[in-house]
Amino acid sequence: MAPQLDGFFKQVDTDADHFIERLRKAVAIPSISAEPERRPDVVKMGEWMANELKSLGASVELRDLGEQPGKPGLHLPPCVLARYGNDKNKRTILVYGHYDVQPADKSDGWATEPFDLTVDDKGRMFGRGSTDDKGPILGWLNAIEAHQKAGIDFPVNLLMCFEGMEEYGSEGLDDLIVAEAKKYFADADAVCISDNYWLGTEKPCLTYGLRGCNYYSIEVSGPGADLHSGVFGGTAQEPMTDLTRLLGSLVDTDGKIQIPGIAEQVAPVTKEEESLYDNISFTMDNIHESLGSKTTIFEDKKSTLMGRWRYPSLSIHGIEGAFSAPGAKTVIPAKVIGKFSIRTVPNMEIEKTNEAVYKYVNDQFAKLKSKNTMKVYEQHSGKWWVASPKHWNFSAASKAVERVWGVEPDFTREGGSIPVTLTFEQATGKNVLLLPMGSSTDGAHSINEKLDKRNYIEGIKLLGAYLHYVAEEPQQ
Amino acid sequence: MAPQLDGFFKQVDTDADHFIERLRKAVAIPSISAEPERRPDVVKMGEWMANELKSLGASVELRDLGEQPGKPGLHLPPCVLARYGNDKNKRTILVYGHYDVQPADKSDGWATEPFDLTVDDKGRMFGRGSTDDKGPILGWLNAIEAHQKAGIDFPVNLLMCFEGMEEYGSEGLDDLIVAEAKKYFADADAVCISDNYWLGTEKPCLTYGLRGCNYYSIEVSGPGADLHSGVFGGTAQEPMTDLTRLLGSLVDTDGKIQIPGIAEQVAPVTKEEESLYDNISFTMDNIHESLGSKTTIFEDKKSTLMGRWRYPSLSIHGIEGAFSAPGAKTVIPAKVIGKFSIRTVPNMEIEKTNEAVYKYVNDQFAKLKSKNTMKVYEQHSGKWWVASPKHWNFSAASKAVERVWGVEPDFTREGGSIPVTLTFEQATGKNVLLLPMGSSTDGAHSINEKLDKRNYIEGIKLLGAYLHYVAEEPQQ
Repeated sequence: MAPQLDGFFKQVDTDADHFIERLRKAVAIPSISAEPERRPDVVKMGEWMANELKSLGASVELRDLGEQPGKPGLHLPPCVLARYGNDKNKRTILVYGHYDVQPADKSDGWATEPFDLTVDDKGRMFGRGSTDDKGPILGWLNAIEAHQKAGIDFPVNLLMCFEGMEEYGSEGLDDLIVAEAKKYFADADAVCISDNYWLGTEKPCLTYGLRGCNYYSIEVSGPGADLHSGVFGGTAQEPMTDLTRLLGSLVDTDGKIQIPGIAEQVAPVTKEEESLYDNISFTMDNIHESLGSKTTIFEDKKSTLMGRWRYPSLSIHGIEGAFSAPGAKTVIPAKVIGKFSIRTVPNMEIEKTNEAVYKYVNDQFAKLKSKNTMKVYEQHSGKWWVASPKHWNFSAASKAVERVWGVEPDFTREGGSIPVTLTFEQATGKNVLLLPMGSSTDGAHSINEKLDKRNYIEGIKLLGAYLHYVAEEPQQ
Repeated sequence: MAPQLDGFFKQVDTDADHFIERLRKAVAIPSISAEPERRPDVVKMGEWMANELKSLGASVELRDLGEQPGKPGLHLPPCVLARYGNDKNKRTILVYGHYDVQPADKSDGWATEPFDLTVDDKGRMFGRGSTDDKGPILGWLNAIEAHQKAGIDFPVNLLMCFEGMEEYGSEGLDDLIVAEAKKYFADADAVCISDNYWLGTEKPCLTYGLRGCNYYSIEVSGPGADLHSGVFGGTAQEPMTDLTRLLGSLVDTDGKIQIPGIAEQVAPVTKEEESLYDNISFTMDNIHESLGSKTTIFEDKKSTLMGRWRYPSLSIHGIEGAFSAPGAKTVIPAKVIGKFSIRTVPNMEIEKTNEAVYKYVNDQFAKLKSKNTMKVYEQHSGKWWVASPKHWNFSAASKAVERVWGVEPDFTREGGSIPVTLTFEQATGKNVLLLPMGSSTDGAHSINEKLDKRNYIEGIKLLGAYLHYVAEEPQQ
């Protein structure tokens, strides 16, 4: 029997402005985990979340994760663990999200103050963290509140795990998840994470696969200190010369990785897989719009989706230690660190990929015959993940999407990584579902990050409806 | 007949402490031209110079240079123009220097207070501006005073031009030099600038050449905003991929510029020139020490000096718009600007060099077959300068060095640029000599800038002796 959801939905609509105000308060706290000087704001945000949860009747713990590795004296923000409901006759769903955000400064090019939620006449709610991931985590709180106000029994026990370091490598979280898998999280029947995005702007999706990510540094050093290019240009071997040559050898304009031993590890495409792509709601116009340009590698939908989901990619992110400001400076940087990463897919192995990268970069450097010193090393890595989309966790979510949005969701994979997905799956042994709230145009890590009001409000309904369907799905 | 200089030299020795006190007073005024909030101190320093000159009997004008371009409401510090002596039977020498200094703050790592001249037991006088350029410009004043006290006739008419914006692009100066070339500077017979350094620490040099500098940007853009490499890696053509390939194609590890049309413009080495290098007081140990490493392109002195002075070099300075902080960020930068410069030498032409650079970079980009947009353009340029070291201006200075230091000076060029040198030469049509006071270890733009007491006191003698030899050199 389909769950009775009209009362809940109506309550969400009634409280829409209240829920937007809650998001405004959350966005106003600049909880940037990558900037040590902002750490007090990250902690403040964690405490704010805990207080909101307590006021809704949840039991809450702020878990201390200790000092940040490599940063003596800098404490990690707490992990917020919470439980709402403890009824043995109900299923228990563990949800995860994060309350920290990417860096943002008006001067980066934001049209509005990044920490002042600004709603325009199209219902776009601009603000850092609006879609990544404050909107989605508040979605769970809002769903609880709407049930309380409408007097509707909450259909499941909800376990919540909200961390404050997601945008900086989820420091300390894996250990906590592993430690709590058979304790705090022991009765979880399934896991749901809302921290990704629709493939486009009109049709919701459920996500069952993610690429992994191996992140590398190439460090080239020579002189003892930065040099004046007038005095030393033409006499010293310059680290930047070597580094740009190395970075320029990694990948070509069409994204073809030049490192032997990568493509060889990729699982071949099956006929069944190939047929899946045709029905997915996605057009080249979608990617051109989200790119803001037509500078795609491929001209067709299937190649583009495969390029994003099921093939590895290599991106060069930048250089540390060189001149990076506007204007002109005639410096020869003494030590420069190039950063790049490889998105990994089944059946690539982290170690095998590292070996291939190290060998290639070392070989390329040897060809330069440079007197400078070069080191290539992994900064961090996370494995790819693929789940079974036929599990009741997914069928419940699929029915909830149909109920709220009136369409069947696309079953998609993602090009990005949410390493915690794999950690939850491995630690709990339960099915993990990715249930996105925002759309492809939200610009999670960019300037002018936004969440559409429609996605937020209907998203609250979707999270609540999902829990009702979860309660009714037969065991498989 | 060699000039009688003993009385002058003795007076300089007698007044050594007094001259150091004068330098102490000058260093105490933090005349940092790059910091608008310090502008009153720069003006104060200009007025202090004017008063010192007046008390020595010079006629002085403080020339208003108007507002600083691009900084409405911020006035440029005055240019101090002064004349000492107006005897038609004497030669007139125009000297240039600057009374502003680089930024300095104790917290940058200074061992002493940067604006408190501190003399250690090795006679090193630490303080911002001690060697660049307050010591040298006070050298002229001290030479005048010693002549007066010793009752010795001053051998030339001295025209002085001391500016207050040298460390910030000499704003406003070029126009003044051109305007006054046939007015205030009309009777100058030669120009002498003391604003560079010995090649080493033991042997004085006279400098007759400087490299020029063409500074370029390569801008590659594609997407409308920065992208997440998980979501877009493998589907978008990435500007950083293209830019690193372009930057990596410019120059090799051994400094060989890969751009056709550059080497072709370089004047061939003559036998006469080649023989000059052997006698120059410079060793590979010197460059290894100043580099702080052994990562030189060449293993021998001659190639190293030629690499610094008489061949062009290309340095890659950095990338604007990419990720440049420590740590890991999985961004695909939307627009990146690579910065590089070419140090230019005779007979390279600015425009011809630009054309060669533009053609090469455009050709390399075309090979990438990228959909991204690329622009290459010049940020600024300044021409190289080479004077005739056989002019009487140089032979007078050479004799003065021999007299004061007991050695023949090295005739050197410099790898860097002092753009005002060329402006004086072109505007006045007269020979320009660079006559350094400080040594290679003075650290002009670094923390712990210093001038050795010996270089200061013997330097005052050198400037005075130079004027005496100038008075006696036959016209060529």
